[in-house]
Amino acid sequence: MAKVAVVGASGFTGGELLRILLAHRYVEVEIATSRTNAGEYLHTVHPNLRGLTMLRFEAPNVDRLTRCDIAFLSTPAKVSSELTPKLLETGVKVIDLSPDFRLKNPDEYRRWYGWSHPHPELLEEAVYGLPELHRDRIRSARLIACPGCTATAAILGLAPLAREKIILGDYLVVDVKIGSSGAGLSRSLSSHHSERANVVRPYAPAGHRHVAEIEQELERLGNPVRVGFSAHAVDMVRGILATCHVYPTRSLDIKDLWRIYRGFYKGEPFVRFVRDKKGLFRYPDPKAVVGSNFCDIGFEVDEHTGRIVVLSAIDNLVKGAAGSAVQCMNIMLGLDETESLRIPSLHPV
Amino acid sequence: MAKVAVVGASGFTGGELLRILLAHRYVEVEIATSRTNAGEYLHTVHPNLRGLTMLRFEAPNVDRLTRCDIAFLSTPAKVSSELTPKLLETGVKVIDLSPDFRLKNPDEYRRWYGWSHPHPELLEEAVYGLPELHRDRIRSARLIACPGCTATAAILGLAPLAREKIILGDYLVVDVKIGSSGAGLSRSLSSHHSERANVVRPYAPAGHRHVAEIEQELERLGNPVRVGFSAHAVDMVRGILATCHVYPTRSLDIKDLWRIYRGFYKGEPFVRFVRDKKGLFRYPDPKAVVGSNFCDIGFEVDEHTGRIVVLSAIDNLVKGAAGSAVQCMNIMLGLDETESLRIPSLHPV
Amino acid sequence: MAKVAVVGASGFTGGELLRILLAHRYVEVEIATSRTNAGEYLHTVHPNLRGLTMLRFEAPNVDRLTRCDIAFLSTPAKVSSELTPKLLETGVKVIDLSPDFRLKNPDEYRRWYGWSHPHPELLEEAVYGLPELHRDRIRSARLIACPGCTATAAILGLAPLAREKIILGDYLVVDVKIGSSGAGLSRSLSSHHSERANVVRPYAPAGHRHVAEIEQELERLGNPVRVGFSAHAVDMVRGILATCHVYPTRSLDIKDLWRIYRGFYKGEPFVRFVRDKKGLFRYPDPKAVVGSNFCDIGFEVDEHTGRIVVLSAIDNLVKGAAGSAVQCMNIMLGLDETESLRIPSLHPV
Amino acid sequence: MAKVAVVGASGFTGGELLRILLAHRYVEVEIATSRTNAGEYLHTVHPNLRGLTMLRFEAPNVDRLTRCDIAFLSTPAKVSSELTPKLLETGVKVIDLSPDFRLKNPDEYRRWYGWSHPHPELLEEAVYGLPELHRDRIRSARLIACPGCTATAAILGLAPLAREKIILGDYLVVDVKIGSSGAGLSRSLSSHHSERANVVRPYAPAGHRHVAEIEQELERLGNPVRVGFSAHAVDMVRGILATCHVYPTRSLDIKDLWRIYRGFYKGEPFVRFVRDKKGLFRYPDPKAVVGSNFCDIGFEVDEHTGRIVVLSAIDNLVKGAAGSAVQCMNIMLGLDETESLRIPSLHPV
Repeated sequence: MAKVAVVGASGFTGGELLRILLAHRYVEVEIATSRTNAGEYLHTVHPNLRGLTMLRFEAPNVDRLTRCDIAFLSTPAKVSSELTPKLLETGVKVIDLSPDFRLKNPDEYRRWYGWSHPHPELLEEAVYGLPELHRDRIRSARLIACPGCTATAAILGLAPLAREKIILGDYLVVDVKIGSSGAGLSRSLSSHHSERANVVRPYAPAGHRHVAEIEQELERLGNPVRVGFSAHAVDMVRGILATCHVYPTRSLDIKDLWRIYRGFYKGEPFVRFVRDKKGLFRYPDPKAVVGSNFCDIGFEVDEHTGRIVVLSAIDNLVKGAAGSAVQCMNIMLGLDETESLRIPSLHPV
Repeated sequence: MAKVAVVGASGFTGGELLRILLAHRYVEVEIATSRTNAGEYLHTVHPNLRGLTMLRFEAPNVDRLTRCDIAFLSTPAKVSSELTPKLLETGVKVIDLSPDFRLKNPDEYRRWYGWSHPHPELLEEAVYGLPELHRDRIRSARLIACPGCTATAAILGLAPLAREKIILGDYLVVDVKIGSSGAGLSRSLSSHHSERANVVRPYAPAGHRHVAEIEQELERLGNPVRVGFSAHAVDMVRGILATCHVYPTRSLDIKDLWRIYRGFYKGEPFVRFVRDKKGLFRYPDPKAVVGSNFCDIGFEVDEHTGRIVVLSAIDNLVKGAAGSAVQCMNIMLGLDETESLRIPSLHPV
Repeated sequence: MAKVAVVGASGFTGGELLRILLAHRYVEVEIATSRTNAGEYLHTVHPNLRGLTMLRFEAPNVDRLTRCDIAFLSTPAKVSSELTPKLLETGVKVIDLSPDFRLKNPDEYRRWYGWSHPHPELLEEAVYGLPELHRDRIRSARLIACPGCTATAAILGLAPLAREKIILGDYLVVDVKIGSSGAGLSRSLSSHHSERANVVRPYAPAGHRHVAEIEQELERLGNPVRVGFSAHAVDMVRGILATCHVYPTRSLDIKDLWRIYRGFYKGEPFVRFVRDKKGLFRYPDPKAVVGSNFCDIGFEVDEHTGRIVVLSAIDNLVKGAAGSAVQCMNIMLGLDETESLRIPSLHPV
Repeated sequence: MAKVAVVGASGFTGGELLRILLAHRYVEVEIATSRTNAGEYLHTVHPNLRGLTMLRFEAPNVDRLTRCDIAFLSTPAKVSSELTPKLLETGVKVIDLSPDFRLKNPDEYRRWYGWSHPHPELLEEAVYGLPELHRDRIRSARLIACPGCTATAAILGLAPLAREKIILGDYLVVDVKIGSSGAGLSRSLSSHHSERANVVRPYAPAGHRHVAEIEQELERLGNPVRVGFSAHAVDMVRGILATCHVYPTRSLDIKDLWRIYRGFYKGEPFVRFVRDKKGLFRYPDPKAVVGSNFCDIGFEVDEHTGRIVVLSAIDNLVKGAAGSAVQCMNIMLGLDETESLRIPSLHPV
């Protein structure tokens, strides 16, 4: 029975970690920290946990955390880069859900995040927590850097093409649509229901920080690109759809795509292909993955333009955050990778 | 390993039955029927089941159904009253989610549904499938009549008061708010997204058929009432809130209510009390039960008027239909009543 | 050309006042105040006004306000009770959208709002700004106290019955459903899109302050009552439905109700009756009034219980606030009462 | 007082035409046709028109239509191509909102719509009803072909760049997000609220018919392109955002873009530029145009990739259909182009 801590447990991602970990048969949630809610029952903040646990939030404290085997850090940027070295030193493994260890090149932190990384020596050791790409390294990792939510959708959608060097790197467009939980619990006006309902808000037409990690991972697969990335807030609570518009380096038809994608994701427990002739859900749609750890991937060839359209849908809080993190933990602990994650999505919802 | 069939498996309730039953450790889904979708994979209609089963819909056929131990009937009114006797005859137990066996008095079918019941002899045998009220009779039942979704919310909210004869029977108001999945898959204009979004539509200010079963059950508890019932469609997919406005026969304070409710529901696995001093979810809210089998109950005393307000929230497709049905099945099979139902709700969603 | 000011112009109600007043042919918006947004163009906060005006917010300043003929106060409770006497003194008429002058009896402020009214001498002079009840007094008023939004819906729904003394005062239930704009721009967690979407949140099962003004107005019509009032937040931006459950003092049928309601509201430009045999919108629904100044009223007799159900739907920001306020202004200025308010609602929206 | 008819008046677009035309000071709605609803009051279908007109739907009849000066055809594809010649022959001018006369080249109908155009001789005469591009020809036209709703958004967003030949024609991506009213009133499962809420459904990743008219219009401006067009259904009732990802033929900065866009749309009454440093609505968002005839346009330069992102937001039922059609009518009648269209959008909604 591994002991785990959730640091920053009162946010949406923290809540999802708790939901999944409390139902996990082989781990015990020892600590859930929250500065604001210290002393309160988890269900005060996460009403879905009512009746399922009597655990309470506690204030964060490094000494207490060292009692755990694994700490999930669901903390704001720059917090985990300070906390992580302390935990690693005492033998606690870290699964970091913040952006602090995702990029290999410290210069990229300066460029995209505007700060100097305080522990660049850990960047190379940190493993980018996408099991579909880095399963072997995750197994023995001390430090996992979980991907950004939109990056997860984009990378899983594009990785098979990247390994085949199919993406024309100068003209890659990734157009992302995301639900309100992606912005976290911040009480900004932009999250006010009256201002957030019924929007298609292009909150980052250019310059989104996840570009850095998408480019890093696609390059590691052999296909350097510059991503023309635009992110839009749409009216849903959970979910991401990444629409990837790819101009290919060579001509491909649908059969080629099926072969490439099937080959790449053979045996993956949480990647599903969605490209049907019938039904409402013929292509990936975040609605069909809400609450699950699945990444649904589909594709189309636009014969008019030669463009390949890759569609990739995830629940931003699950496969885009907590679910992927637990999947990494399962791998690190030598457990069945799907433990506590075999939950179908809800439909309709 | 009990074998089960879901008859009418392409609807929303059918989909929920499949979601829960496919994950159940002690039953096997043998048959899922659908006239329209016969031959197709379940995930064509229920995208959340993609990758979880290779089962296909088949056309309904009584002979095939007799291979099962239990048949769930998620069929329109009047279908199951014809099918049920045939199934019972061959030893198949029936869990009926239609209204066909809910009422004890055949006259009430004439009055509320406008038709003569074809098998009144089965009405007395049928057990009203609310475990919190009829657990013992469910255990040995051949035929379960699952409650209407709004009736579940109202009855569970009011039962503790009814047993104490606290409800002034002439002035009981139940004001219900329900999501769009409650109307089923019918392609009527009233379900069109553009016409259904942003509504508070009083679709049944009076005359709702669930009144009959609510009054039946409250009377059996000792408190005859006439329910002033009004139902409103609101903009959500899942969920019911029943706001019960009760004028009491004697004066009660909050402590009395806690005592009465705690006593009545002691040990119930799927009833939670929600009445907090802090937090956003201080009272029951369907948002907090989405995807779960919980019924959240709360109450307030209006000192200005003497009125007691009882709030009862469920997911109409789970505790209001499929979840309750599986809970009954678990009881009938002698299993842990919570088997396959210990799924927390999603939050936020 | 009357000169008007909007004090507190950056909120939702302030925005609606500006939308309506900027399009008004006989008034000129001279001043729009906002502490937070002073110096900015109105469209920074109200994107719908982009391109329609070059006016900017200015910081509130009493001296500046005295240049106007009429000041609309869209300020938090307790602000306008201080500001109003100063404005009246200089001859500026005040249309107050806060609760500060709605109640006639100063004791009621202590009871429902918990504070001593600083200017009780103005309470009797203030006219409750519901043209359908107080048109004559509005004409010559210096100070208008605009009703609370849920009170508008409830009072307009019940007034015809009250004048006939039909409401059994001890058993009157008003069950209200309201959209997110009703809570204003406050950045509380309860307004966060992820926490506010898909709710039916009983935020005030008892104890809502609007009870005081509803009871005051119904009593003035001759029918003292104690209102069993419960308010629920539902997932829409604009709109209120008040479902009024009335147990009558004498038996009435539908024809009686038509006669009573038609008689009471004869000639009213902004009251519509909705009770059809066909169509989706057979009863009042806030969806059908969004953006308009209409109050849609419908009713039903529940033959099973004798209960009368009165349904009353408004746009909380228009008929529930800014629209009604401008209607009062039109009356005060001797203009056509519907000036700048003859805008049909949007459908679908 | 021009007499107008709305043919196909029971749909969403028909309803919007009626809303705008009934409030128009210089035209009279003589006829509103609907096969299904003949004989019924308009408000049975369009609840927002209740109390504003006593007009009833009538069955379509060509002889009756000849009494009008102008007929708006809001009919399904292939209907207006039959009806239009008959109307033109009798001197009735036609404003067609269907796709039947949008394309100049009859071969394109075979290619994109799969049918042979029955009256190719009218294609050249028909004027593409986008005032911003074809105002002069609209003035004297007998036959207006109103643009497709997503085409309006895309063309208005891209036209200024196209006239400057800035768009690299092989790599133009237009990623569209649209609300549920865009699919019309069809009672398909895809429009069912439970299936349509919370989606980001890529219903046309490639092959959308509006591509043909977008390419036609951009080519006429001097910039031939092949549009990589993908359309997504999102959870809102009204609105379109077109995100246009443009790789430019020459390097441009923000100032260049301002100059190009300002120059192109100088004096246009319904084009607004949205690119602010502050506020929630810094870029175009359909939420900010709901109910209005505005097209909001914004742009960004992605320095990382050289890409230009053009954002274009409209209300699909207004600027994307009925509003633009009335704008054309105003021009044809020699009226102020903004007559009956100066309605600000609602905010928030």
